Amino acid sequence: MDREEAIARLASARVARLATVRPDGRPHVVPLVFALVARDTGVTAYWVVDAKPKRGRTLQRIRNLEANPAAELLADGYQEEWAGLWWVRASATGREVVDREERDAALEALAARYPQYRDARPDGRVFALDVTDVRWWSGAD
Amino acid sequence: MDREEAIARLASARVARLATVRPDGRPHVVPLVFALVARDTGVTAYWVVDAKPKRGRTLQRIRNLEANPAAELLADGYQEEWAGLWWVRASATGREVVDREERDAALEALAARYPQYRDARPDGRVFALDVTDVRWWSGAD
Repeated sequence: MDREEAIARLASARVARLATVRPDGRPHVVPLVFALVARDTGVTAYWVVDAKPKRGRTLQRIRNLEANPAAELLADGYQEEWAGLWWVRASATGREVVDREERDAALEALAARYPQYRDARPDGRVFALDVTDVRWWSGAD
Repeated sequence: MDREEAIARLASARVARLATVRPDGRPHVVPLVFALVARDTGVTAYWVVDAKPKRGRTLQRIRNLEANPAAELLADGYQEEWAGLWWVRASATGREVVDREERDAALEALAARYPQYRDARPDGRVFALDVTDVRWWSGAD
């Protein structure tokens, strides 16, 4: 695997896991549906607060990112033949998307990936994870 | 889903994701093969440093846990019908297993789950994640 393939695998993962750090210093991890957008200026993963039932009014991941924007996004493939195992991990900096144009583009990218977002365009807060580093591992390498 | 089912789903997941916090305060997340053991005293997830190729001599996750033992272990199920989404997240405290009896039991539990560990019993360091809290979410609830 090289960087290009690592980013392609992350981009095509239907779900990834977002790790952040809670204000009290403990880790936090949740599954995340997202859309990866590559621009000349860098790679960004977008996600939106959608209509899936949530535990509270403000998601823990958002409280975490507001206190500490450092994040990691992990995609991996498991199979019983361990030579087929792989993972791709993006270190990133989280921020809320406030620019209207960027928000529209993010929602467009999310709708292109997930039919649920085409059927009912989410109107919640949109967040960006600006990728600062990509690491990968493959049992086949 | 209730607590019993949440623990059962975590226990039967072939892979979970381990989130820890790096010494510099950034999050870290990796896929993890593990075995969950429930005792009267509590639930513990065990994992072992095995023969899969590693990047360095000491795994980042171990350096993290040595500096900050707080961990989270996440199992989730993705499907295109989002009503079928679910996740189970265990907050835990990490520690290295030094007791010989506990180490043997952990390796036994790991070998029972993964044929790779039966074919070649790993001889690396064994770590425990003592579960302190379990949370879950299901799109079907």
